[in-house]
Amino acid sequence: MAVAMKTFRVGTRGFSDVVDITAEVSEAVTGSGLGSGIALAFVAGSTASITTIEFERGSVNDLRRALERLAPEEADYEHNRKWHDGNGFSHVRAAVTGAGFSVPFQDGRLLLGTWQQIILIDHDNRARTREVIVQMVGG
Amino acid sequence: MAVAMKTFRVGTRGFSDVVDITAEVSEAVTGSGLGSGIALAFVAGSTASITTIEFERGSVNDLRRALERLAPEEADYEHNRKWHDGNGFSHVRAAVTGAGFSVPFQDGRLLLGTWQQIILIDHDNRARTREVIVQMVGG
Amino acid sequence: MAVAMKTFRVGTRGFSDVVDITAEVSEAVTGSGLGSGIALAFVAGSTASITTIEFERGSVNDLRRALERLAPEEADYEHNRKWHDGNGFSHVRAAVTGAGFSVPFQDGRLLLGTWQQIILIDHDNRARTREVIVQMVGG
Repeated sequence: MAVAMKTFRVGTRGFSDVVDITAEVSEAVTGSGLGSGIALAFVAGSTASITTIEFERGSVNDLRRALERLAPEEADYEHNRKWHDGNGFSHVRAAVTGAGFSVPFQDGRLLLGTWQQIILIDHDNRARTREVIVQMVGG
Repeated sequence: MAVAMKTFRVGTRGFSDVVDITAEVSEAVTGSGLGSGIALAFVAGSTASITTIEFERGSVNDLRRALERLAPEEADYEHNRKWHDGNGFSHVRAAVTGAGFSVPFQDGRLLLGTWQQIILIDHDNRARTREVIVQMVGG
Repeated sequence: MAVAMKTFRVGTRGFSDVVDITAEVSEAVTGSGLGSGIALAFVAGSTASITTIEFERGSVNDLRRALERLAPEEADYEHNRKWHDGNGFSHVRAAVTGAGFSVPFQDGRLLLGTWQQIILIDHDNRARTREVIVQMVGG
């Protein structure tokens, strides 16, 4: 039994930009030498999320539209009135969709569906470089 | 310290059908021989979710109505225009509600509230048989 | 490798009251003696959530308004018609935002962003005392 961690960086364009990080998370698991366990993909910060989707342009855009309905970019936010950074919508979207995603793995392989990818969503209102932490516990 | 895994199958009717899987997850923990740790209930695939609710018909229907407001079945989806499988709403609902649910356990027992059940929600637009993975790490 | 658990209590005012529990979760990790691993902060019960946000009054109020749009307090709920406890909105909000939140830790320290806090949201329609479970696995 052991713990292994790997981090990697992802460039994003912000505004709920969706980036497929399945390959990086998968490599973290393979490289850890662990056979089976739980891998937690986590993004530090309060304006990004990690979740899962079938990563194809249609579904990705549909998700982005649903996030826009949930917390419209141009709505009035108390956060913006106080901090004047204009990313009030980003905080709401991130809090609802969640900063981490846990995936089981076995024989060094993520147990995802064939059409299921792990995605980072950057809700901030500018391009960012994000660090993703993959924390693995298992044996 | 050890890792244990158990899988089981669930038949669903799709369209955000909600199925109580608490007993199956609980039996996975009991049968693992592990005393305490974290159990991750996970569904492979991009059109289903696992979360928690008080499993009674009223709350379940209220949740389904909220999901319908979040991503209406009959709205226009880019995913549908491209793939013609008609389950664009399913992908959005699954991405927002999440494919996995982690629960702590102690003395071989899930630490859930009295009125708290673990549920699988199948958002796809047809009946499905889903495989749920319970990945447990602990000792 | 080991498992460690700590619980603590939080008083809330209900109605999606948001409470910063970062210090308590952080102390649970420090006090566990574990170096690195995964900490799962979990609230038993079906009307509360744990997630993350930049904890400042503006963002917190913006999140509460988004939850009110998602599941309005005064809407019609089947749960209320059956149980007459008036917290139908609470169940829907809790199911969507999630009862648990997993955070990686290293060198006994939570790997959160500078402006990222762990929050308990109590969606119930009255003041409550909640027990939060921090289940840690690692080494």
